[in-house]
Amino acid sequence: MDIKKELKDKQSFVEDVLKKYTIKEGKPKSIFESFNYSLFVGGKRIRPILLMESCKCVGGDTNEALPLMAAMEMIHTYSLIHDDLPCMDDDELRRGKPTNHTVYGEATALLAGDSLLNLAYETMLKGAKSSKDINRYVEAMNVIADSAGVKGMIAGQVMDMESEGKEPDGETLDFIHDNKTGAILRASVISGAVVGGATDDELKNLSEYARAIGLMFQVVDDILDVVSDEETLGKKVGMDSERNKMTYPYVYGLERSYEKVDELLNISLNSLSDFGSEADFLRELALYLAKRKN
Amino acid sequence: MDIKKELKDKQSFVEDVLKKYTIKEGKPKSIFESFNYSLFVGGKRIRPILLMESCKCVGGDTNEALPLMAAMEMIHTYSLIHDDLPCMDDDELRRGKPTNHTVYGEATALLAGDSLLNLAYETMLKGAKSSKDINRYVEAMNVIADSAGVKGMIAGQVMDMESEGKEPDGETLDFIHDNKTGAILRASVISGAVVGGATDDELKNLSEYARAIGLMFQVVDDILDVVSDEETLGKKVGMDSERNKMTYPYVYGLERSYEKVDELLNISLNSLSDFGSEADFLRELALYLAKRKN
Repeated sequence: MDIKKELKDKQSFVEDVLKKYTIKEGKPKSIFESFNYSLFVGGKRIRPILLMESCKCVGGDTNEALPLMAAMEMIHTYSLIHDDLPCMDDDELRRGKPTNHTVYGEATALLAGDSLLNLAYETMLKGAKSSKDINRYVEAMNVIADSAGVKGMIAGQVMDMESEGKEPDGETLDFIHDNKTGAILRASVISGAVVGGATDDELKNLSEYARAIGLMFQVVDDILDVVSDEETLGKKVGMDSERNKMTYPYVYGLERSYEKVDELLNISLNSLSDFGSEADFLRELALYLAKRKN
Repeated sequence: MDIKKELKDKQSFVEDVLKKYTIKEGKPKSIFESFNYSLFVGGKRIRPILLMESCKCVGGDTNEALPLMAAMEMIHTYSLIHDDLPCMDDDELRRGKPTNHTVYGEATALLAGDSLLNLAYETMLKGAKSSKDINRYVEAMNVIADSAGVKGMIAGQVMDMESEGKEPDGETLDFIHDNKTGAILRASVISGAVVGGATDDELKNLSEYARAIGLMFQVVDDILDVVSDEETLGKKVGMDSERNKMTYPYVYGLERSYEKVDELLNISLNSLSDFGSEADFLRELALYLAKRKN
């Protein structure tokens, strides 16, 4: 499998899904321009791709998953817009482009984030109304909602913020990783499996996969902030250490971080051993995410 | 009917509903303290009360409506927290108490707002899962979601912001009123009716009621900013004119504003003429909201 080509095709498929479910125009113009700017500024689209592939993997109908996929990327994008705001990380560059508030101003960026979070639910609810199994659909939405909230992503963001400048602490690091990035990556895989009608065993295995690659994704992120350069990464590097962020290299060093990536890669591959070729893409994706350079 | 006593009882009932559905504690402490601070700092609880009464009015089971009521107040509170932020209205006082960012700082306040918006959906989705009629429930959620988003409340907020300092303009004023406050007030009534199993006629009449009192509520708000004082209102007065906000008195003058309130009160009462005593509270509430002093 040419994973780079596969990924590119799937990314372009996700772009089309997002175009279908976003609201392109409305009044006042500025807010629609602003949130669509961030939604279409690029990105790996890993979350919707995970959701779709997890749904496929259990023999589900991926048409059912489309609104969930769009919603997941909207939630991810809203979190980035708010994370970049001056009162948060105050970043000017994201995915190689100016951040939302740099282009549209703080107030509009704040509301663009709010718009995307709400639009995620508007989109999923319309998906639920037209779905073949509304109970299953609501269950998948519930997985996503819980992951994005104060017991998931937001808890991780707050802890990340509050741990800046603190002494290295493995427990805090685990909490941040589990929640800040891990929660919605896991939810992508699990909601895809739920809407696809996974059996309990399939759900258990995919949850294990999700947990491993969610954490792996973040450890790689932490490593790249140390070893990459701005052009490759599309954002400033060295920011974590400048802010004394609680990262894997900060707590355990770079060598142990690389080992951790390998361990997590093995766990993610092992968790898929009950699946056949239908899980090939998820396997290749784990490998790719372990080795990624940006 | 002693409307003040009735309202007080219902407000206290809503407090209990909120206590039931909020997440009181978690890690990190700060974020749970922050969003619960704003959720329980007071407020008229008009939106959940409208939702409950509308549900009752069509003979619905109000137990079904409880998670929707909590969610509606969470959405309202999130919008206030974000509205008060320095990059928006930069308000220090709300409901007579320091605003969220004044107490917890900007970053936490931003995330407290995000938490509440997401928690609204977490709460409703759990309501949907245990509801007696999930299709009806999802429909009610859909009404709420659409009203809170970029085609509703957020569009109104942006227009409100962008119209500051502009010449009086009735069309812009209507847009702001319809969306900024009107949208979620209307959605409260309509979602209550939907989850209560309203007939088409009941829904039509209640929608008319909702439209009239939603607009009336905002015109009264505009008037109070001109004629009230800080102690009565629990926030600074005269801020709209200081910011050259597009308000009803600014566009049409104070006398015409009072007339408009009377017109809307009549429309709201007429729209309930097909209902019997089950709509008495909604009638009294319209009267009360027309005459309110804060």
